[in-house]
Amino acid sequence: MKIFIDCDPGVDDSIAILFALFRKDVEIVGISTSVGNVSASKGAENAMRILKLAGYEGKIPVCAGAEKPLRGECEDFPTFIHGVNGTGNVELPATSQRPMDMDVSDFMYQKACDHAGELVLISLGRMTNLANTLARYPDYAGKIKRVVAMGGTVYASGNVSPVVEANIGGDPEAADIAMQADWDMTLVGLDVTTVTHLTRADVDKLLRCCNPAKKDAVSFISKALQHYMNGSRIQNYTMEYSPLHDPLAMVVAVDPSVVTTRKMVTRVECGGTYCRGKIVVDLREQPIKGRFVEHCLEVNSRKALNELFAAFQN
Amino acid sequence: MKIFIDCDPGVDDSIAILFALFRKDVEIVGISTSVGNVSASKGAENAMRILKLAGYEGKIPVCAGAEKPLRGECEDFPTFIHGVNGTGNVELPATSQRPMDMDVSDFMYQKACDHAGELVLISLGRMTNLANTLARYPDYAGKIKRVVAMGGTVYASGNVSPVVEANIGGDPEAADIAMQADWDMTLVGLDVTTVTHLTRADVDKLLRCCNPAKKDAVSFISKALQHYMNGSRIQNYTMEYSPLHDPLAMVVAVDPSVVTTRKMVTRVECGGTYCRGKIVVDLREQPIKGRFVEHCLEVNSRKALNELFAAFQN
Amino acid sequence: MKIFIDCDPGVDDSIAILFALFRKDVEIVGISTSVGNVSASKGAENAMRILKLAGYEGKIPVCAGAEKPLRGECEDFPTFIHGVNGTGNVELPATSQRPMDMDVSDFMYQKACDHAGELVLISLGRMTNLANTLARYPDYAGKIKRVVAMGGTVYASGNVSPVVEANIGGDPEAADIAMQADWDMTLVGLDVTTVTHLTRADVDKLLRCCNPAKKDAVSFISKALQHYMNGSRIQNYTMEYSPLHDPLAMVVAVDPSVVTTRKMVTRVECGGTYCRGKIVVDLREQPIKGRFVEHCLEVNSRKALNELFAAFQN
Amino acid sequence: MKIFIDCDPGVDDSIAILFALFRKDVEIVGISTSVGNVSASKGAENAMRILKLAGYEGKIPVCAGAEKPLRGECEDFPTFIHGVNGTGNVELPATSQRPMDMDVSDFMYQKACDHAGELVLISLGRMTNLANTLARYPDYAGKIKRVVAMGGTVYASGNVSPVVEANIGGDPEAADIAMQADWDMTLVGLDVTTVTHLTRADVDKLLRCCNPAKKDAVSFISKALQHYMNGSRIQNYTMEYSPLHDPLAMVVAVDPSVVTTRKMVTRVECGGTYCRGKIVVDLREQPIKGRFVEHCLEVNSRKALNELFAAFQN
Repeated sequence: MKIFIDCDPGVDDSIAILFALFRKDVEIVGISTSVGNVSASKGAENAMRILKLAGYEGKIPVCAGAEKPLRGECEDFPTFIHGVNGTGNVELPATSQRPMDMDVSDFMYQKACDHAGELVLISLGRMTNLANTLARYPDYAGKIKRVVAMGGTVYASGNVSPVVEANIGGDPEAADIAMQADWDMTLVGLDVTTVTHLTRADVDKLLRCCNPAKKDAVSFISKALQHYMNGSRIQNYTMEYSPLHDPLAMVVAVDPSVVTTRKMVTRVECGGTYCRGKIVVDLREQPIKGRFVEHCLEVNSRKALNELFAAFQN
Repeated sequence: MKIFIDCDPGVDDSIAILFALFRKDVEIVGISTSVGNVSASKGAENAMRILKLAGYEGKIPVCAGAEKPLRGECEDFPTFIHGVNGTGNVELPATSQRPMDMDVSDFMYQKACDHAGELVLISLGRMTNLANTLARYPDYAGKIKRVVAMGGTVYASGNVSPVVEANIGGDPEAADIAMQADWDMTLVGLDVTTVTHLTRADVDKLLRCCNPAKKDAVSFISKALQHYMNGSRIQNYTMEYSPLHDPLAMVVAVDPSVVTTRKMVTRVECGGTYCRGKIVVDLREQPIKGRFVEHCLEVNSRKALNELFAAFQN
Repeated sequence: MKIFIDCDPGVDDSIAILFALFRKDVEIVGISTSVGNVSASKGAENAMRILKLAGYEGKIPVCAGAEKPLRGECEDFPTFIHGVNGTGNVELPATSQRPMDMDVSDFMYQKACDHAGELVLISLGRMTNLANTLARYPDYAGKIKRVVAMGGTVYASGNVSPVVEANIGGDPEAADIAMQADWDMTLVGLDVTTVTHLTRADVDKLLRCCNPAKKDAVSFISKALQHYMNGSRIQNYTMEYSPLHDPLAMVVAVDPSVVTTRKMVTRVECGGTYCRGKIVVDLREQPIKGRFVEHCLEVNSRKALNELFAAFQN
Repeated sequence: MKIFIDCDPGVDDSIAILFALFRKDVEIVGISTSVGNVSASKGAENAMRILKLAGYEGKIPVCAGAEKPLRGECEDFPTFIHGVNGTGNVELPATSQRPMDMDVSDFMYQKACDHAGELVLISLGRMTNLANTLARYPDYAGKIKRVVAMGGTVYASGNVSPVVEANIGGDPEAADIAMQADWDMTLVGLDVTTVTHLTRADVDKLLRCCNPAKKDAVSFISKALQHYMNGSRIQNYTMEYSPLHDPLAMVVAVDPSVVTTRKMVTRVECGGTYCRGKIVVDLREQPIKGRFVEHCLEVNSRKALNELFAAFQN
């Protein structure tokens, strides 16, 4: 399975990338970044260091993308979650790899053309890069096999407003554009990620069980999660665990059987006080105009976590 | 139990009023109307004709209130549901009763003072009159025992947008004011009203089982529902049944055991394209500022319907 | 939020009091005790030592109340659960605070008058003091904003008989009087407390995560729970966890959104072999005479526990 | 399958007997009656007329039993449900059959001995006759294959008190004796009978679909249900339907697959104001002394009704 990852690493993005790298049935053909957990350029740097950590230095092209959402400015970075450097204040060894010196949309489109019809697009951040590429290349959507995106929430509480998740809330206009594109999109949102608990106890077990060749990666995860779980504790009162956001999306991409889903006519609300960035699904008999997006509603959390950890043991 | 009804009759408002009139343990001390299903003045006329139909002509004061929401103009009346006259195009006999010649807020406040601490306010339409009275009389909320309101939806689909119910969507600013007032409010919304089905078959049974003295009222209900159920069919594809909106709120007021509820920090979204009028509940650990409003989540529909019909048999 | 606590500390009462003391949005205006887990006088002493432990020595008045239920004598104290001293056999430092030298009903009524209309009464033990105060001061109920009581069970198993919970079973006559009073009462019973598991693992986490200024309180909790969890294990075969009784009632008082509830016509059975103290709810169409009491039916246990622990971290 | 029926006909008892007579795989070896819906002697007369109606005049022995519960006197008969004559005020043709001139316990014991180890005892009324026979013949229980009894409620509302069903409430001491006997007992209680709706519409269909040879029986059922359903309507607000009590127990006896069950330690409360006659199940880890009784918790109502009706079509 060939995938392209658009992300904003980010502690949980990093874990998701490591999982993908270690899955033998997954091939990452490219990585792009946008502003979110950190700046797009910092995110690209983090992605490349993650590649090195896993033994893939210089082997997968990385390209920095949008530093701003389609509309408005960025808010402060959530450093209490991801640390100042995006990797939980854990300093990863520097890499000699350099980001692609090209426009991110050109990069994304080129990769889509190279693997037309077989590329799965994994979106782990805001959808700004996706929207820009769709705007520049009207046939981009047609070249992508399907999209699996971490983002949104249908029934669960939001994390940047009562009803809004951060990736969608960070660029609602881009998300609406991406969701109205002519491709199959699966949203892995807070309905499933917040009930899948990544615990300190499990990470400790993984440290003991992991493949020695992947020990560095697991050690990094363990350390980065200290800051991340503490941020989760401050925000959501979770002690020594956190929700599993981006890695769950990656697990769903490779094994969709861990979730139950429903395809619903979907739009993104772009206005309002509490609802800017809210996923609006229309289940009425005569719905508004909008495309069917597949939303994950329930998850076999234990199985998803075990599959995630297994990639570090094999 | 003493109640004050603010409504916009309306076919289902009419059934709710008849139910309250026929419950031996309920005393209606006043009725006010606002624009909604029909104009406020037409709604007042309908309310008075309903009183006459049930043998209460001139015995309960009725006052017409707001003809406009707090902000903006009114949209067209939903005549395909409630008919041109608001009572499903069934012409009720004229009444000699005249509406109160006074401001609706003065009227509502006076009734609240007359029965301070024991009056249950039943809100079956937009909350414009409530908001205006709260603004004029800051101690109004403190005189009301509790509020039971038909309106909103937390998890179910909306009926004027994918996520918005008509009573709240018709005046979001007023609803938010009413919900932030210092009183206990229970919202009977689409989560429970749309799963409670008022069927033609049941109404036919009621025609056979009803108290002869209440036959005229039941006949009216039966006829008015022809238009109402047809409107429901056109809008929601329901054949020979409709959701039970306002009457369910009235049943919950007299017997709260038919529903399960959850109190949640609640605000009303007043902006946006799809979400203006949406009920926003915040279940996060550190919620936004807002009051706890009690929302009905599940309903024993069969029991609620049987209690509704029983008032016409006894 | 101003609260008055009537209790019988008791290990779980102590945790509940500490939680209330550490919640910034809660102000305890008084504490009364009745016989239950220990004698009323011993309970008062325990409450005062808890106040000292949390840095509130002498700042909140404590009054000892009923040493007997309305009818009959007391059974032996449940020392295998709460220890001989009521605090799990952990010896708390002595305090110079002395209990109020006045009748408990006078004390309770005075506090209700001082904060008329805004005081939330938290009942964590038998309702003997409540019943006596209601009898002496007929207008007591009207001065209380609402009552949140730990006690009873509707569908879950009892803990002193197959169908009876200890607080209600310890004084059924008092409980029936309290439930028929003209105030809003929410019962947090075994239906929700026995499915909310306080685990040794979570307490260990809290020891690591807590605010250093609250370390003494958490250490006390950790130690007292050794005896308490052991008692739970002997009685209910629970290994290293216990149900969460009194603290859950306190959490519900500050955040009612953690539970779903149903208001039901309620009486307390005062006779019988197995049913003396049973909560009798009447959901029939034509119920017996009785007031609507709100019963908690389901709980978001994880959220409730996290909110409980958060007060010791902030 | 050989069965012995102890009953108190009664409209629904009559339907249950007819069902058993028409089931080809069922053989009724005897019928006894006790006071309940009518007197024991009147019940015996009704049973014999039912036999004649179905073509079994004089072919199955009928014996009248207890005219009083073990303790206390009888209350008035529920004529508004079963009519003055027990068969919904429908006058069935007289029969030349006479009731057995012997003690009911001798009769029950003799039948048990005649079919030792293979007789299923169906209890459709109070358990007075069972208790008396168990007292007189200590080895009675050992001769019975199993008992299927209509009675009690675990979670559903009662019908003679908030928590008590009529058959058990009519003689709690007898019920407790019967439940502590050393035999396998299945209780078909209100948890399943009140959610299984016998509707006028279905009976009308049966009139059209039934075997011509059984038309008289169905006509009788149809007429008797007019009074019975009206009584249900007055008591429980059910329009043109009623719960399915005794016939469901009979269906469960022949096809236990229509229900899910749980065996629970069970006693009958014999004291109290609201709870005299309440089924007390003990699910605690260390339960009281009591035998396991099997309680029906859920039912496939549509299947059960269809099986009931099928016996009248074949």
